[in-house]
Amino acid sequence: MKNITIVGSGLVGSLLAIYLAKKGHKVSVYERRVDLRKNRISAGKSINLALSDRGWKALEGIGIDEEIRKVAIPMKGRRIHNLNGDVNFQPYGKEGQAIYSVSRGGLNCKLMDLAEHWDNVEFFFEERCTSVDMENATAHFENTSTGKKSFVESDLIFGSDGAFSAGRLSMQMTDKFEYSQHYLEHGYKELLIPANEDGSFKMDSNALHIWPRGSYMLIALPNLDGTFTCTLFFPFEGENSFASINTEAELMEFFNRIFPDVVPLMPTLVHDYFTNPTSSLVTVKCFPWTNKDKVALIGDAAHAIVPFFGQGMNCGFEDCTILNELMEENGDDWTKILKAYELARKPNSDAIAELAISNFIEMRDLVADHKFLLRKKIEAYLNEQFPEKWMPLYSMVTFSQIPYSEAMKEGKRQEQIMQKIMAMDNLEERWNNGDLKSLLPQLIS
Amino acid sequence: MKNITIVGSGLVGSLLAIYLAKKGHKVSVYERRVDLRKNRISAGKSINLALSDRGWKALEGIGIDEEIRKVAIPMKGRRIHNLNGDVNFQPYGKEGQAIYSVSRGGLNCKLMDLAEHWDNVEFFFEERCTSVDMENATAHFENTSTGKKSFVESDLIFGSDGAFSAGRLSMQMTDKFEYSQHYLEHGYKELLIPANEDGSFKMDSNALHIWPRGSYMLIALPNLDGTFTCTLFFPFEGENSFASINTEAELMEFFNRIFPDVVPLMPTLVHDYFTNPTSSLVTVKCFPWTNKDKVALIGDAAHAIVPFFGQGMNCGFEDCTILNELMEENGDDWTKILKAYELARKPNSDAIAELAISNFIEMRDLVADHKFLLRKKIEAYLNEQFPEKWMPLYSMVTFSQIPYSEAMKEGKRQEQIMQKIMAMDNLEERWNNGDLKSLLPQLIS
Repeated sequence: MKNITIVGSGLVGSLLAIYLAKKGHKVSVYERRVDLRKNRISAGKSINLALSDRGWKALEGIGIDEEIRKVAIPMKGRRIHNLNGDVNFQPYGKEGQAIYSVSRGGLNCKLMDLAEHWDNVEFFFEERCTSVDMENATAHFENTSTGKKSFVESDLIFGSDGAFSAGRLSMQMTDKFEYSQHYLEHGYKELLIPANEDGSFKMDSNALHIWPRGSYMLIALPNLDGTFTCTLFFPFEGENSFASINTEAELMEFFNRIFPDVVPLMPTLVHDYFTNPTSSLVTVKCFPWTNKDKVALIGDAAHAIVPFFGQGMNCGFEDCTILNELMEENGDDWTKILKAYELARKPNSDAIAELAISNFIEMRDLVADHKFLLRKKIEAYLNEQFPEKWMPLYSMVTFSQIPYSEAMKEGKRQEQIMQKIMAMDNLEERWNNGDLKSLLPQLIS
Repeated sequence: MKNITIVGSGLVGSLLAIYLAKKGHKVSVYERRVDLRKNRISAGKSINLALSDRGWKALEGIGIDEEIRKVAIPMKGRRIHNLNGDVNFQPYGKEGQAIYSVSRGGLNCKLMDLAEHWDNVEFFFEERCTSVDMENATAHFENTSTGKKSFVESDLIFGSDGAFSAGRLSMQMTDKFEYSQHYLEHGYKELLIPANEDGSFKMDSNALHIWPRGSYMLIALPNLDGTFTCTLFFPFEGENSFASINTEAELMEFFNRIFPDVVPLMPTLVHDYFTNPTSSLVTVKCFPWTNKDKVALIGDAAHAIVPFFGQGMNCGFEDCTILNELMEENGDDWTKILKAYELARKPNSDAIAELAISNFIEMRDLVADHKFLLRKKIEAYLNEQFPEKWMPLYSMVTFSQIPYSEAMKEGKRQEQIMQKIMAMDNLEERWNNGDLKSLLPQLIS
């Protein structure tokens, strides 16, 4: 039994608390903000998330997957809104497969409640971590309300305090710590499509809606109350950018021209656009994640990624799944557990970081491309006919537990094959007349 | 006239103070350590440096190049010590070209003295910068002797506080700041070859000595007192590494086997090896370097690089040269000066960072290679015959003011040509019989 401090009571910190409590450890969770359950903060950013297989597996491990599934909305595919008003649908996977829109706040509160049911878990709020002493697992805090400084000694500290982790900053100061933070040239802003007066959805609720427009895009995810949370991913600078839209007239001219079908659905567009913050998109990579049996980073603190593959939370949850497996294998040998944990997870978090950036290009650009749609059809066919030999990259990442790094490698192999296929003459004709189908087994082997 | 705070009184900070003082600014320099001139600290690391053209140009700008040249030792080429005892010589450039070994401490003291001659420059020691307020150019300090905390308001702050800059750390916390720190798998340790009893050198003093051994190497630079400062660049981990040598016996077995000719020259090898620290080698990249007209990073604080091209100090000094040119062009419009400064220097510091890492491979590995030596001869011939068309990469970096990014680009073009030449059949014969020479004009055009 260890005395364990967790810094950060977000999704991953709260889930981790439960996994550690189940193993009998005494867990203290320190959170910078107030108790989310008493003050639901909706800061106009990131209020919903897409749960997929890796996330579900971690929730299964603590037995709350069924309960969460009841409040999750399945999104079976992408609904693409073209500039000319056409809308089409691309399934994410096979029949029955979906990703699930869940409320970030709702899920986080649920996990905190569940963690607090354990006698060996305690939460402390408004405690901002200022630094971590790597050698003796001591965390320093400042109370954001009283300003009182304190420190907590424990056997082991987990830093699950997100992309701007205080624990990681302490590690950054140590010799030979690899670190990078890289921002995209795009930022994002949340907008809202409200429900109809009767509470029903204004669009198909079983899809993730995308308005792909080349160098930028708008997306919408359904919420239980009939609303859609929309996110505009848009360059910070340039011709069409956050910097170029400064007046109501400029905003409306742009939306009427670029997202004409959205305008009637967004009565509060002007207010939301000029009130909600413009946020940036960062990728954080670092190594090592752990120091002996004293300190470990987990979730975004170890590997913040951009949101375009919908894997940020799923990847952090998978950290907990893997850590739990390693606890089961190695008992209380925490030096061994943590070393194995960072070695297992680092290549996979690097892979999903790269895949997430690539998927932005696919989402904002390719999904509206005629040839891309044909390619998706061919890939879906391959998956259907040769499920052992061909699982599309999206499916490996989203609907399997295949390590991200292996999925990426296999995805690159498939990419080469698909490029050959897509370069064939009269491809569309050959696809339609069935000629291509007879060639595929040879092409993919 | 501006009130300017410089954080760090190292080589670049002290030189910058002089350039700013000459323009009439009031300059306050804050240094974490004690006054170097009162306590010459020789921490067993980095006590000599190689000055080359970019460094000299910056010293010319403040009129002390001739004075420094008197205490600098020209190194006209590399003296390569092979494992079999053979020693050969590779000139760095053309007749009359050399890089210069200078004492880091001596040069730094000289620059501080010169800065202090100005009434508008003041130094403060034992003041550790803890943070910088980007918006109003306020620097916070803690006195390392008394513990007293203070802050200094000014119009503009320069962070010249090295690879682990406090000013840069404050910038890292701001949105959209690009940052990476990357360590090599090699570390370094300083060793010593003392002078003969009569004060003379034990080896040729007009060369940089290299013992290239594939994945690691030893180098030696001459000092004015007849000694050589040697540096062992060695992997931290692995079969032959700092981790693998833990006893006197292991050390001597290794040196007798790998550097047999050095052992008799190093009477204090065992003591030095086990007493001197093992240091790491970091590359730091970041952007932006400036914030409006309030804050700017310079030297290692903006772009720490590994030492294998001998350009760390030279690059930092060139920052001062360029900044001085921009002050002359733009008067007191500091927003314009700083924006132009970072845009001009960033691509060049990125280029020298990459070149410095590549040059490690050349130094530790290729210089002992027969084919590499032939290639160097061919390149020297090209430079001699076609000086307008062919200046080797090493010369562009070391003996010219060509921007590093352009040198790197031209170096890549030359690399492609040389690879074609080196792949020719019977190359050595064709070189020796003059056949190749007649083909070269066509090959390089």
